Amino acid sequence: MDTKSITGPCLMIDREKCLDNIDRMVQKAKANDIIFRPHFKTHQSIAVGRWFREYGIDKITVSSLKMAYYFARNGWRDILVGIAYNPREYELYEKISAKCRTLITISCPDSARILAAQCHFPLDVMIKIDTGYNRTGIKWDDPAELYRTMEYLNHNGRIKIRGLMTHDGSTYGLNSRNKIMEHYAVSVDRIIKCRDKTGIRDLLISIGDTPSASLADNFSGIDEIRPGNFVFYDLMQYINGSCSFNDIAMALICPVIDIRPSSGTVVVHGGAVHFSKDSIVINKKQVYGMVARMDNSGWHKPTDEIYISSLSQEHGIIKYTASRIVKNIHPGDLIAVIPVHSCLTADCMGSYFLKGGESLDHMRQLPQDSEYSL
Amino acid sequence: MDTKSITGPCLMIDREKCLDNIDRMVQKAKANDIIFRPHFKTHQSIAVGRWFREYGIDKITVSSLKMAYYFARNGWRDILVGIAYNPREYELYEKISAKCRTLITISCPDSARILAAQCHFPLDVMIKIDTGYNRTGIKWDDPAELYRTMEYLNHNGRIKIRGLMTHDGSTYGLNSRNKIMEHYAVSVDRIIKCRDKTGIRDLLISIGDTPSASLADNFSGIDEIRPGNFVFYDLMQYINGSCSFNDIAMALICPVIDIRPSSGTVVVHGGAVHFSKDSIVINKKQVYGMVARMDNSGWHKPTDEIYISSLSQEHGIIKYTASRIVKNIHPGDLIAVIPVHSCLTADCMGSYFLKGGESLDHMRQLPQDSEYSL
Repeated sequence: MDTKSITGPCLMIDREKCLDNIDRMVQKAKANDIIFRPHFKTHQSIAVGRWFREYGIDKITVSSLKMAYYFARNGWRDILVGIAYNPREYELYEKISAKCRTLITISCPDSARILAAQCHFPLDVMIKIDTGYNRTGIKWDDPAELYRTMEYLNHNGRIKIRGLMTHDGSTYGLNSRNKIMEHYAVSVDRIIKCRDKTGIRDLLISIGDTPSASLADNFSGIDEIRPGNFVFYDLMQYINGSCSFNDIAMALICPVIDIRPSSGTVVVHGGAVHFSKDSIVINKKQVYGMVARMDNSGWHKPTDEIYISSLSQEHGIIKYTASRIVKNIHPGDLIAVIPVHSCLTADCMGSYFLKGGESLDHMRQLPQDSEYSL
Repeated sequence: MDTKSITGPCLMIDREKCLDNIDRMVQKAKANDIIFRPHFKTHQSIAVGRWFREYGIDKITVSSLKMAYYFARNGWRDILVGIAYNPREYELYEKISAKCRTLITISCPDSARILAAQCHFPLDVMIKIDTGYNRTGIKWDDPAELYRTMEYLNHNGRIKIRGLMTHDGSTYGLNSRNKIMEHYAVSVDRIIKCRDKTGIRDLLISIGDTPSASLADNFSGIDEIRPGNFVFYDLMQYINGSCSFNDIAMALICPVIDIRPSSGTVVVHGGAVHFSKDSIVINKKQVYGMVARMDNSGWHKPTDEIYISSLSQEHGIIKYTASRIVKNIHPGDLIAVIPVHSCLTADCMGSYFLKGGESLDHMRQLPQDSEYSL
């Protein structure tokens, strides 16, 4: 990409790195003979989805019904809507289910009761199990809740329970391979115990976080994995050991707009409306992004001597440890920032550019009035 | 608005409250005989801009050049671009300046040097002074930097320096009227000292934060105020005392999707992609939004017994202090959440609904390829 054409903040994707990340996960799933149902909430892009399709992927996960419609319009025909069921969307679920296989996530008995009362059309359901993350789902050690949920659904007659799923996001905050693998083993053990209690052997077991999926080699007991973030990775995954720096496939390119030597800061156009506001602690410093030099060939590896220390709406404040690091930086120069959380940065930016200059779609670009068309 | 039509998260605006907030600021500016140049980065909406225009406002502030184009296309003809000058946008500044009076913000000598070298067209400039916030601008106690900046600009011959501006965002984090007013007095004193040092009496003095503008009654020494957030206010402004709860004109309406009595939580569809991720500490609790009941007439006043305790991409986790508070809540029910930071929530949502059901534009809806058309 000719960087001369860049005027404001833009999100650059390294396609080769994405393809390597996809390829690694595809091979791992094949070696374990499990279903790979990638979560598309990270990229929300038809173009990136196409890269997956070229690897033979035909089942996906999304984080909202709107996103299911976005990909269904592009020909995806087997979609798990990972967010818990919202009864206000019943008609929309029915409409999309007529066109493509749509898996609904049920996470509590009350939702099961409501869906069972609403449903007059064949629907597929996954039951969400909370294996310890404590966000959504039926607690793994509360079989009575699970039985109650299943009874409601089965009573309807048109609803098929396809499996049990979990997303144990606790692994995002762990900081070593060992801790993540220990956590993963506990999570898998718990969801399998739930299936054992139902006595239904053919309930599929589906798990979902990027750290486990990146670090585990053996998925025994598991039928399906649903990682999403791995397609781009980010600083959070790099710090918790799920990827190497070279695997990170995204950087936000920001123009420098203020040089403040007496404060030890440089300011870029690139703020909370571009990055979102996730941060991470690195060496006791609150970091909103790591800073790297860039040129026409892409971004270089950042050092920990220069990082984004705070964000306001449009501004990113960069701190550095020694003045030599910024001595040749001027307003209008471009720097690359490796984001803390690529899913949120992609969602804020709502568009991408490849290193070669080509632009990619993002669901954010969709006109509001066509969100639920098919 | 008939709430039956709501299926997913949506951002509701109380027009009457907005108009009251605007009216109060207009009257205050009139009483002090100062220019009121509201910051439009909070709402980014042509429709909301029209409400200001009906009060006779014809000068505005924006936080990006893209936003300046958005409002210039709608007939605004005097626009201060509050973000520091990015030399990559020179041609775009020239193009918009030909159509409407555009004030460029220069925040360091290096930017002044570069703009002076680029500029071959009459341009108006404001110089940004850092009165203590330590984000951008020339430090108030560094007159040498200020002289250097002015010399660069004046040397060009086509550039006119119109005034000195500051945005002292430190007031957002203060938690009492007294502290905010003390801070404000120091900030005003410092920027006036800067003008005194230039010896140019007709340099305009412009200040910009919502807490000071909301709480001060006397603006002596000041020529212009540029508050933005006050149009909606939010939890942050309520907690720091800049507004009463009744002044808050925005709530994110979220459907309940999970009920988890054993965890003491309820989960809504409404996450970081809807709210952004600003939080605030209230009674030692990290709060991402306060929760209120709602009905067809709008939202009620929240209590501190129920609040959003964490956000992931699409989920908001609600904690409550006693089970009676949620005993009648079911999946599909709507609750109103008062956001921590209305500017970022509006930017994430990219659309609004009035309580009556009418929708309002937001700059996010603009197709990318028309960002810089005029």
